[in-house]
Amino acid sequence: MTDRQPLSTEPYKGVRDFYPGDWARMQALFNRTREILTSYGYEEYNASPLERAELYESKGNEEIVNEQTYTFTDRGDRKVTLRPEMTPSLARMVAGKRRELVYPLRWFSIGNRFRYERMQKGRLREFYQTDIDLIGLPEGEADIEIITLAHDVLVNFGATEADFSIHVNSRKLLRIASEVAGLPEGEHARHYWQLIDRKAKMTPETFEAARKEFTADPLAVIEAGTDERVAEEKARLTALIESLKARGVGNATLDLDVVRGFDYYTGTVFEIFDTNPENARSLFGGGRYDGLVTLFGGDPIPAVGFAFGDVTLMDFLTTHGYEVKTPAQADIYVGTPSVDDREAARSFANELRDNGAKVFMNLTEKSLGDQVKEAVKRSIPYFAAFGKNEAESGTVRLKTLATSSEEEMPRAEVAARIQG
Amino acid sequence: MTDRQPLSTEPYKGVRDFYPGDWARMQALFNRTREILTSYGYEEYNASPLERAELYESKGNEEIVNEQTYTFTDRGDRKVTLRPEMTPSLARMVAGKRRELVYPLRWFSIGNRFRYERMQKGRLREFYQTDIDLIGLPEGEADIEIITLAHDVLVNFGATEADFSIHVNSRKLLRIASEVAGLPEGEHARHYWQLIDRKAKMTPETFEAARKEFTADPLAVIEAGTDERVAEEKARLTALIESLKARGVGNATLDLDVVRGFDYYTGTVFEIFDTNPENARSLFGGGRYDGLVTLFGGDPIPAVGFAFGDVTLMDFLTTHGYEVKTPAQADIYVGTPSVDDREAARSFANELRDNGAKVFMNLTEKSLGDQVKEAVKRSIPYFAAFGKNEAESGTVRLKTLATSSEEEMPRAEVAARIQG
Repeated sequence: MTDRQPLSTEPYKGVRDFYPGDWARMQALFNRTREILTSYGYEEYNASPLERAELYESKGNEEIVNEQTYTFTDRGDRKVTLRPEMTPSLARMVAGKRRELVYPLRWFSIGNRFRYERMQKGRLREFYQTDIDLIGLPEGEADIEIITLAHDVLVNFGATEADFSIHVNSRKLLRIASEVAGLPEGEHARHYWQLIDRKAKMTPETFEAARKEFTADPLAVIEAGTDERVAEEKARLTALIESLKARGVGNATLDLDVVRGFDYYTGTVFEIFDTNPENARSLFGGGRYDGLVTLFGGDPIPAVGFAFGDVTLMDFLTTHGYEVKTPAQADIYVGTPSVDDREAARSFANELRDNGAKVFMNLTEKSLGDQVKEAVKRSIPYFAAFGKNEAESGTVRLKTLATSSEEEMPRAEVAARIQG
Repeated sequence: MTDRQPLSTEPYKGVRDFYPGDWARMQALFNRTREILTSYGYEEYNASPLERAELYESKGNEEIVNEQTYTFTDRGDRKVTLRPEMTPSLARMVAGKRRELVYPLRWFSIGNRFRYERMQKGRLREFYQTDIDLIGLPEGEADIEIITLAHDVLVNFGATEADFSIHVNSRKLLRIASEVAGLPEGEHARHYWQLIDRKAKMTPETFEAARKEFTADPLAVIEAGTDERVAEEKARLTALIESLKARGVGNATLDLDVVRGFDYYTGTVFEIFDTNPENARSLFGGGRYDGLVTLFGGDPIPAVGFAFGDVTLMDFLTTHGYEVKTPAQADIYVGTPSVDDREAARSFANELRDNGAKVFMNLTEKSLGDQVKEAVKRSIPYFAAFGKNEAESGTVRLKTLATSSEEEMPRAEVAARIQG
């Protein structure tokens, strides 16, 4: 095995290794997310990251399809893509059982997505995303529920409304305005809205100059608000924001610059931004996409949803001091005074496990002092040596490692004590 | 979006879609596995399924490397493989932080693995596997812990020792016997042991005939047991099985036919079989692999571990009637007598959520009768209509859907009642 150059220990470029401490933080984030979403009756689904490539070729974000997917040909000559996002898989699954499913669907999925990004700070080729969707209901209550839920997810993680702001817009509004302004559909309109989408990243001068290069200016049509259909859709958004206020969502505003990257959106769109000026990133984004399942044939099924990535959420929580608690590796380290004490220690460890405790047991021949040091290094909160003496007496000296204090107690009381 | 042929709703060949009910079963299996392993102080880690291809080219199971991996070249001309197994990633991660880690490592990982299998019943191209490893301790106590843990995992899922049997062997024994018998290392020895590995799948006549074609017969050397080193290693295995018995593992036996596919094993190897003659499949498999991290340079780090797949474990549990319980989508369906009752219902739903309940709330305009029917279809156990009347009276009629019985109670008592 050693007659060659050693292999590199680096992971593949742009992906992360999750050592136990790292993964515990991820799992804590996912599990808290699950708790919040299931409390609203949302159910978790999943699919393989391997999808037929055609799923991404038929619609949407050209940049992602053409430059950013991992697409390859398998040994059976099938074209395969590693999913860059979840919504097409969701639409495929809904379409596949459209007659059996009980609507509305309240569904979510937590998993990895893959994008071949040009490498830069914070850009990963594999990241984790939570996708939340409410399917089978038209705009109105469903849009309110989804935006309220996005708000409540952040609040449940500890955030206050001062920490984030919800920016609401409508793709329908943009479409009507394009029509009214006479901006031809297709590439031209796409480039116009891409410009609006990037407004926040440009100087006002550069933005205004670029805007003037287009033959028509739909944004001006929306701002004027004189066209009847434009006014009607703007009024719908204003009413939506009022309804959100009535439900306790006080930090939503109309923002005509919110466009969202994917082409499949048809109605309400929204983004949530961190209000910290040093980290003014988009945390959550979503919207209504009523047409997506028609890619698979059949009638449209109305749908609205949103998604968020692990890196931006974790950054937000860390910056604002709302980090999710991660559990320790074990509740207790059971030490062995000598090798001969292993059998007694093991039976004590199993007794603790049967009573719900997480127990790390020593298998080495190190001294008790070194075993205590190891427990401290592992951040395990309690330590107890257990051997033939303890088995005979039935009592244990339980050490609290944070304070180095010790307490003698019957062995039967330990499990309850350490799971405080 | 509809000006083309509808897309197929089928997933990519050989992978599974997990609709909420399916994924709930998988999650229940994973979560129970996590509970058991963390009670033994094992910590979960993870890595990306994308690995540099060289990780699999340097060792091991030739069939998997040459015919069964998903390997492709990325847009930056890097050769990438979707991990077919976890152990090489684990070895890479351990080697990468070999000086910082606190040994022994008790680590596990639950995740998907990819193999381009020729399609046949029960063979998937993506499956979920749990890998459990104890790293940094030599054979002896560590091997006993790992085999005991494999046993305890099954027992914790409800199995009795009559349901499965543990077959123990040693790669070291096979290596010594090859030497003693004069079977040259390399391809020839590999083919010999592959034959032994397949013995159970052949008739005794075919097996004996194939065995006679080899120039030497190491198995005969082991069976004779006259060589000193052979006798010594056999004695170690016998002692190991005795120690297992002392620890309450009564269904382990020496089985000279257990070889295991991967080339990286160096000592104890074992497999656990379902004792049901109609489903005599290998459920768990593992062993000691002390040399693997040397692929990355540096000294060997002793390691022992095992793994199991989701499909075989689920089949085993189902066949024997030990299925893991899956939670319902929600504890309660909160119905709305009319659209005007939504606000009252929502505030009741939020009150229940704040008290830990999972609540599915109606957003449609269906009749209460249809809402009850929907709750039954969703297998939600309780139903309560809530509107302005309930808000005024402060009492709720709680319907238990399994029995259609109703009970009137103060709204504040519902959360505790439905989470019983």
